[in-house]
Amino acid sequence: MANAIDFYFDFSSPYGYLASIQIDALAARHGRPVRWRPFLIGALYKRLGYTPLEQPGKRAYFLHDVPRSARAMGVTLTFPPSFPEALIAPARAVYWIADRDPAKAGAFAAAAFRAYWAEGRKLADPEIVAEIAAGQGFAKEDVLAALNDQLVKDRLKAETDAAIAAGIFGSPFIVVDGEKFWGSDRLDQMERWLATGGW
Amino acid sequence: MANAIDFYFDFSSPYGYLASIQIDALAARHGRPVRWRPFLIGALYKRLGYTPLEQPGKRAYFLHDVPRSARAMGVTLTFPPSFPEALIAPARAVYWIADRDPAKAGAFAAAAFRAYWAEGRKLADPEIVAEIAAGQGFAKEDVLAALNDQLVKDRLKAETDAAIAAGIFGSPFIVVDGEKFWGSDRLDQMERWLATGGW
Repeated sequence: MANAIDFYFDFSSPYGYLASIQIDALAARHGRPVRWRPFLIGALYKRLGYTPLEQPGKRAYFLHDVPRSARAMGVTLTFPPSFPEALIAPARAVYWIADRDPAKAGAFAAAAFRAYWAEGRKLADPEIVAEIAAGQGFAKEDVLAALNDQLVKDRLKAETDAAIAAGIFGSPFIVVDGEKFWGSDRLDQMERWLATGGW
Repeated sequence: MANAIDFYFDFSSPYGYLASIQIDALAARHGRPVRWRPFLIGALYKRLGYTPLEQPGKRAYFLHDVPRSARAMGVTLTFPPSFPEALIAPARAVYWIADRDPAKAGAFAAAAFRAYWAEGRKLADPEIVAEIAAGQGFAKEDVLAALNDQLVKDRLKAETDAAIAAGIFGSPFIVVDGEKFWGSDRLDQMERWLATGGW
């Protein structure tokens, strides 16, 4: 099977959401599977000593650019009143699901992104996460138990460490055959990379 | 005449260079003139307390993404050994030229960008700047005198202040009818904005 594309993101990242809408179809056009790799951007920023949205001017631009980019794509997107916030439960769920049925991890993650950014659902809440996972055929009680399982918690920490070690410093980051692309606005170059093998 | 597009940039910005190659033709397709508005990004970063390239991981990504983006466009681009550096003389020259012949300011700026990023010329050097301006029909000695004129120096300071006051926090920034677009990777949205009047 062709090498997977690594899709690194945090559920609280709206540009991650915009990329999530496109990534599976884009990869499929080039016969590639996608490995959905959520990490905790708060932990990453803390480790790197880096707080992009506190940079002067950037927050206001970001709050304007995100909905403008969504409208340009015809995508429904509303900033939740609770933004920014840590979205830990859905990230844990992705890895737990991936270990059971890799094909469902992406479908769950896409649904979770949509729930938060388009449907106004409280994605920090394990109950909501379990409901979304139920849509992929997982029993709610199993999901709720997994979200409190130390192994699952440690897995997300390890994945966040791995993202930092791989040089990831924002969301989304997409890695194709070792080549890194940062931001939903690099998907065009990324697709060209897949099509041509690089330049 | 249709409203001008404001093209804010610093000559030391490679993404500014990539935008400079496209901006005039893009604007012309929509019957718009371009106001080339260089500012000093070092002064801006200092004022904002903001040093993007010192953020962990970002410099390495930037040094990889810039030439990759240039190659994707078929544009010759080489990081000068002196990068990053303040490029004050060409920025002053743009405003001095604009006051004499606005149509030549853009042509000069595009040539200056190319000289620095594609031709390996020392754009911090007033002599080189005067040579490039001579290509637009200005006498070298007039240019060299202007670069030391306090009024011209103050003008660039005032333009940098104006950019900061307008909410600019990086290079390039393009403002179309009050709508701000940050980065050479927003040119597609910017063109669509020109074509449709916004969304």
